[in-house]
Amino acid sequence: MSERIAFVGVGRMGANMARRLKDCGYTVTAVYDVHRPAADALAQEIGATSCETLAKVTEAADVIITVVTNDKAMDAIFAGRRDHLLIGAKGKIFINCATLSPKVHRDLEKKAAKVGASTLEACMASSINQARQGTLYLMCGGKQAVFDKVKDILTKLSDEGKLLRYVGESGRAAEVKALVNMVMNINTAGLAEGLGLGAALGLDLTMLREIFSQTGANSRVLVTDGEDMQNRDHSCFFSAEHAAKDSGIALGLAKSKKLDLPLASATFKQFSRMVKEGLGGLDKSGVAELTFKGRHKPKRKKK
Amino acid sequence: MSERIAFVGVGRMGANMARRLKDCGYTVTAVYDVHRPAADALAQEIGATSCETLAKVTEAADVIITVVTNDKAMDAIFAGRRDHLLIGAKGKIFINCATLSPKVHRDLEKKAAKVGASTLEACMASSINQARQGTLYLMCGGKQAVFDKVKDILTKLSDEGKLLRYVGESGRAAEVKALVNMVMNINTAGLAEGLGLGAALGLDLTMLREIFSQTGANSRVLVTDGEDMQNRDHSCFFSAEHAAKDSGIALGLAKSKKLDLPLASATFKQFSRMVKEGLGGLDKSGVAELTFKGRHKPKRKKK
Repeated sequence: MSERIAFVGVGRMGANMARRLKDCGYTVTAVYDVHRPAADALAQEIGATSCETLAKVTEAADVIITVVTNDKAMDAIFAGRRDHLLIGAKGKIFINCATLSPKVHRDLEKKAAKVGASTLEACMASSINQARQGTLYLMCGGKQAVFDKVKDILTKLSDEGKLLRYVGESGRAAEVKALVNMVMNINTAGLAEGLGLGAALGLDLTMLREIFSQTGANSRVLVTDGEDMQNRDHSCFFSAEHAAKDSGIALGLAKSKKLDLPLASATFKQFSRMVKEGLGGLDKSGVAELTFKGRHKPKRKKK
Repeated sequence: MSERIAFVGVGRMGANMARRLKDCGYTVTAVYDVHRPAADALAQEIGATSCETLAKVTEAADVIITVVTNDKAMDAIFAGRRDHLLIGAKGKIFINCATLSPKVHRDLEKKAAKVGASTLEACMASSINQARQGTLYLMCGGKQAVFDKVKDILTKLSDEGKLLRYVGESGRAAEVKALVNMVMNINTAGLAEGLGLGAALGLDLTMLREIFSQTGANSRVLVTDGEDMQNRDHSCFFSAEHAAKDSGIALGLAKSKKLDLPLASATFKQFSRMVKEGLGGLDKSGVAELTFKGRHKPKRKKK
């Protein structure tokens, strides 16, 4: 527990992970976010420093955990022109938790190695409540030696390690995560169709969900999203925009392997349509807004 | 238990249901199948009569359970030109277990009423092992009074009634069943894409399935079909042809409600493609033959 820990990207996920590690007795020395007020507030709450530059974050910590949005945001924090995390990074370890393209992880590992730093990908397959409780499902990719060095920290985030998996070399966790979310998104979009059609037929959706749960239609997303779809409660745990991004990553991998995946493609189109129609900020359960009759009015096309 | 029971359609499902009811002390007096040897063999096994005509089946029983393939087969047994089940059917009860278009159930109920017979739909959301063990998930539609009359029989087929549901008027159970299978088929086709892409990326599929099971990608079909997809074990519990039929019924309902369901459509296309490519007899897990690289060679199109 002697490591000094820093967080870059303190949205709800990052902030909750920081809170959890502090609860477990770790010292979180520094936090950073492009949205400065978020970093300031969290810094005050947990007694950390809200850093003005990324180089200062690296300076203030031994282990830097990054929880940013996408490939572009990763590029900004690791390859910014004037300021970035690899400045003075010799001996530091970066744990990268965003769902990214596998290649980003592989390239970053090489780039970090050149300045004597190490990286580990730690893809999360859980949401903000699990982050706060330290029960994230964590899939890690990278060098086994790096994984071993930060295993204690990861253990405190993953239900005492019960939900911690080392899946292979750098980039592998991102691949697995992309697959997890691709399948999850398919099941979500499919469930929305089943409930939407049930509603159109005038069936009792509470009964229908109960029957789904007892049959071959059962799924994890039925538990997490079914009732929300019925009640139109789309407060965000995992946004439609994220769903579109992750399905897109998976389709990119499929394309590179010349695989045609019609369900994944149809799902990507649904979540992309949500983004286009201004519904990208809804939870993924919001895909039901597209499949229930009369819920969402599509934007009119310009003539 | 005083009712005399008959079975029409004694494929593996019907035959196992007959065996189960006999085990429970019921008298199965008559069996019938268009494939006569199947009826003869079962008749001999359980001490029933293998009937030459449908009218004789009706004559020999109080409750006739039909387990046929599709709408067309239902039409053949209830509206055959010279021979059908409604001949001399006054006071008889027909329990119809096939997954059919809802309209077929509604029309049949009216037609049966004209000759003084009753019908009940009892859609099954389970497979042959459950039929043998009497643990079918049964969704029933029809008049409550008819349901009550045969409830004891249905109870013996549905884990002492724990898996028995009365869902509403005639046709409603078929609607629910179509929705169950539509969602199940989507999840199956989606899982096959996830595992197929995982294989193409060189991931350990046993690990991948374990991770799916712990995350938002989890589903009932992961448990029932995941390992079979990996190992190419497609011995048939629920055929691709059936999957195509049921998804087709659901899409017909969606069309009647002017609902666009892209995932269900993509899934229907996959299972229909299996039928077209000669894979319709495989279990639904066989959809993985389409999504794993190099497994199935599509038939060449004629020039």
